[in-house]
Amino acid sequence: MSTLLARGPAPAGAATTRSSASLRACRGPAPFRSHFQSVVASAAPAAQDAPAPEKPQKQQKQQQQKKQGGGGGGGGGGKAAEAAVTPRSEDFSKWYLDVVAKAELADYGPVRGTMVIRPYGYSIWESVQGVLDARFKELGVQNAYFPQLIPYSFITKEAEHVEGFAPELALVTKGGGKDLEEPLVVRPTSETIINHMFAQWVQSYRDLPLLINQWCNVHRWEMRTRPFVRTLEFLWQEGHTAHATAEEAEAEARAMIDVYTHFATHTAAMPVVPGRKSRIESFAGANCTYTIEAMMGDKRALQAGTSHNLGTNFAKAFNTQYLDKEGKRQLVHQTSWGVSTRIIGGVIMTHGDDKGLRLPPRLAPIQVVIIPIVKKEEDRVPVNEAAARLAAAAKAAGIRVKVDMDERQTPGWKYNHWEMRGVPVRVEVGPKDVQSGTCVTARRDMGKEGKQMGVPMEAAAFTAHVQGLLDTIQEGLLAQARAFRDDNIVDVTSYEQLKAAVAEGKWARGGWSGSDDDERRIKEETQATLRCFPFEQPAGPHTCFMTGQAAAEVAIFAKSY
Amino acid sequence: MSTLLARGPAPAGAATTRSSASLRACRGPAPFRSHFQSVVASAAPAAQDAPAPEKPQKQQKQQQQKKQGGGGGGGGGGKAAEAAVTPRSEDFSKWYLDVVAKAELADYGPVRGTMVIRPYGYSIWESVQGVLDARFKELGVQNAYFPQLIPYSFITKEAEHVEGFAPELALVTKGGGKDLEEPLVVRPTSETIINHMFAQWVQSYRDLPLLINQWCNVHRWEMRTRPFVRTLEFLWQEGHTAHATAEEAEAEARAMIDVYTHFATHTAAMPVVPGRKSRIESFAGANCTYTIEAMMGDKRALQAGTSHNLGTNFAKAFNTQYLDKEGKRQLVHQTSWGVSTRIIGGVIMTHGDDKGLRLPPRLAPIQVVIIPIVKKEEDRVPVNEAAARLAAAAKAAGIRVKVDMDERQTPGWKYNHWEMRGVPVRVEVGPKDVQSGTCVTARRDMGKEGKQMGVPMEAAAFTAHVQGLLDTIQEGLLAQARAFRDDNIVDVTSYEQLKAAVAEGKWARGGWSGSDDDERRIKEETQATLRCFPFEQPAGPHTCFMTGQAAAEVAIFAKSY
Repeated sequence: MSTLLARGPAPAGAATTRSSASLRACRGPAPFRSHFQSVVASAAPAAQDAPAPEKPQKQQKQQQQKKQGGGGGGGGGGKAAEAAVTPRSEDFSKWYLDVVAKAELADYGPVRGTMVIRPYGYSIWESVQGVLDARFKELGVQNAYFPQLIPYSFITKEAEHVEGFAPELALVTKGGGKDLEEPLVVRPTSETIINHMFAQWVQSYRDLPLLINQWCNVHRWEMRTRPFVRTLEFLWQEGHTAHATAEEAEAEARAMIDVYTHFATHTAAMPVVPGRKSRIESFAGANCTYTIEAMMGDKRALQAGTSHNLGTNFAKAFNTQYLDKEGKRQLVHQTSWGVSTRIIGGVIMTHGDDKGLRLPPRLAPIQVVIIPIVKKEEDRVPVNEAAARLAAAAKAAGIRVKVDMDERQTPGWKYNHWEMRGVPVRVEVGPKDVQSGTCVTARRDMGKEGKQMGVPMEAAAFTAHVQGLLDTIQEGLLAQARAFRDDNIVDVTSYEQLKAAVAEGKWARGGWSGSDDDERRIKEETQATLRCFPFEQPAGPHTCFMTGQAAAEVAIFAKSY
Repeated sequence: MSTLLARGPAPAGAATTRSSASLRACRGPAPFRSHFQSVVASAAPAAQDAPAPEKPQKQQKQQQQKKQGGGGGGGGGGKAAEAAVTPRSEDFSKWYLDVVAKAELADYGPVRGTMVIRPYGYSIWESVQGVLDARFKELGVQNAYFPQLIPYSFITKEAEHVEGFAPELALVTKGGGKDLEEPLVVRPTSETIINHMFAQWVQSYRDLPLLINQWCNVHRWEMRTRPFVRTLEFLWQEGHTAHATAEEAEAEARAMIDVYTHFATHTAAMPVVPGRKSRIESFAGANCTYTIEAMMGDKRALQAGTSHNLGTNFAKAFNTQYLDKEGKRQLVHQTSWGVSTRIIGGVIMTHGDDKGLRLPPRLAPIQVVIIPIVKKEEDRVPVNEAAARLAAAAKAAGIRVKVDMDERQTPGWKYNHWEMRGVPVRVEVGPKDVQSGTCVTARRDMGKEGKQMGVPMEAAAFTAHVQGLLDTIQEGLLAQARAFRDDNIVDVTSYEQLKAAVAEGKWARGGWSGSDDDERRIKEETQATLRCFPFEQPAGPHTCFMTGQAAAEVAIFAKSY
């Protein structure tokens, strides 16, 4: 047992919209939408996703090597486990899998497409939970828990919902040794069972709005999987709300995508593009889906969170009504919204480099790691004591800090180890530092030029310096990702330009008034999908790059995860 | 949307031992053991558990009444929802279900035996999580997440484990529209899949101890269910550890039951009896199970948490080995331990009274509710302002506080409402109080004699007074429950005396050196089971009340949930 954690944030996401009742092929809460389409709506393979069967083999091989290599493992020992990752520029996909494995974020489960979230990966999820859960509670949202097993008949009540989800359901057909009369769905999302309960709980306008969230696991039988990004089972939060009016529901759906935008931008340092999904790309059962789209290091888009205005679709299906002030029965207007463990994949692919993970300080379970440097045995006690004093000062200032006292590893090994894990700031303390009352700090987001000698050990000065570094790194990571994103969005005025941009791996932005069929054609021909109509629109008028007709808005097209 | 929460604790468990490899009929993590036996090991019905089919009907009826009653619901309105509960002395079981419903702790799910944990009930779970999770982390335990779906073959690898769990498994047999080649078990507990991973992660002695916990849901296909106490699906934490030596594993199993004992006693104010389970009552796959046994208000025993020394049973089945310092392969020694949402049922049945729930302050999501008393409109602003000031002072002092400003309800209605929900302290503020700079406090654990006038509103004096009340109530609830428990444990020296004690509903304690068959006979004839050999033993020598032979220890027998 090696690592963690001085004091990781404590508390426990991803959901998804539709704009027309005629939409049939459409489904799929947030992070998993585009994939679904590649499987169901078209025959195009989801490009570079590693085919499922390869992974278990690769995994077994790695494990055997690890076993044979001896020493290491568990994060504690051996050099072998700390070998460098595949360079990001060489093979982004392999680089990603290497970082997930070597930073010990996740491992493959025994069932195809499942994932074990290892302690360090889970501590990042706890950070996500801590920030989002506190925000939800500020907004009056209450946590609850609904049963995971849903009668199959519930799923069929909302026509588009069943059409979207049926192909990827896991079904329980036996319980307690007997065949069940009706199969039970292992929840892929909870709109149906929650409406079943809301219909009982909501009586009058005084019970509205009803603002509920749950942190839980969900299952979707995906064919092509990738740790964090798309797995058969994932963790998420799903918010579900009911309102008296359509206006309130719309405001709620927008407010929650704003919460996600703020979280992604200011906590995860991911400069997402918030916007509205096209009809085709909206959630199965929604009137409208809002999304935050993030650009990964390979320029692919990642849907990192979604919020749906469900209108009265589920209320009709489940008869979720309230008595208004005039005593008349009315359908409630609803929303749902979610963020999942997929966001961890987004953080890795936004910020990671050839040395491994780079975590934005506000999300990092360990913000500062202190490495005592001991060469002679007589130095051990004073150096370790100085390190412990620095840690206590940092902790008292609210900084999440760890001292790596492991005597079996060299300082150099520890530098690599914590760089791989993306800890934003490293502090080095040696015998000379103790004598001079200073220490050395190093920034994960920079090379040697990020190293600073002579940082005073005095508590107030030390913590102010470290806090300053954390703030600078947080801003720096965001600025770097934003510059990368902005450099890789191309404004297009013709389909040819779009094809050229997508062929370069870039995002294409242009006026859009095409049909659903036009949108599908682009996907078939280029693998790019309509990611969103950004809320922030350039000044018009716009012309559709596809049809040449006037367009009310510009849209972004890109290949995606 | 009515209630909650000024600031409930934030973050996100129940597991269970065996002492002989010859034990076959034995299984079942903690809270569900005794029930299992009543269903599987014998034909005796689990006494007063309401038969499953009755509940949905009762529920539907109540829901219809509620709908027709209009007004109320959702916690916000109507008097109907606040009607008194069945007196506890009249029908304990009905009283319990009434409290669960009227305090809006839980509701029935659509699938038989499933439960919806409503926001107020879930906020109690968040309190449990906050306290336990912090303690686990202090002890170096790391959270992680393992897949819920487990290959059926895993469950069969440990012979007693499969025999214990097979009868109550839920199986996924279809995924993504296809029949699966091998059915997948919806986890009832995670020893198997965790060993599958541990076997890959653990290489050498340097990787030990490995201390992992997960907060998650589990399923057990129970026939007789009761909200919180026994449901098809429940939430829990399950700790899983691996150690180099048998001694370390034993120390860990004992340390964790001590953690649970401390939590139950000092947070939940439940004076539990910690002890060792008999072979028959131990976890399926354990060498030894430790338990905390609590006495409910009807004197039945509730197994409220368990910790198992698993020995090398799962390590053998999954080949979980490490290289020791001499370079030899050794099996790891393991433990598992858990507490579940069942603990909420225990809190209700330990402390509740005819006015509803009584929550121990350290567990209460809302410790203090402030009720502004406004009769004339001109008083509203000053009274509400005074209430808000008191709330701010309490919050600043770390007290979880809520002001109930709802203008649609009378103060009397609010008193009942928050008494039903068990809030420990109520503060009343009216116009005269504002003038005199004082307020009124009332204790949930007392009647009118617990009311105190003239409490100063000045922040420091007010918060000191309230904090004093909270401490007094916490101690008082524990003392009351302890006195009740001690009054209802009878020392027995013969089987006849045991029968008489059990017939009175009491716990029987006496020397025990009987056989497994003797133990089963007692269960068949009296419905009482051997709850534990308490750690705290009276001075010997002891004689077995059943066989008349010398006995090394005394054991406690009781009817249980």
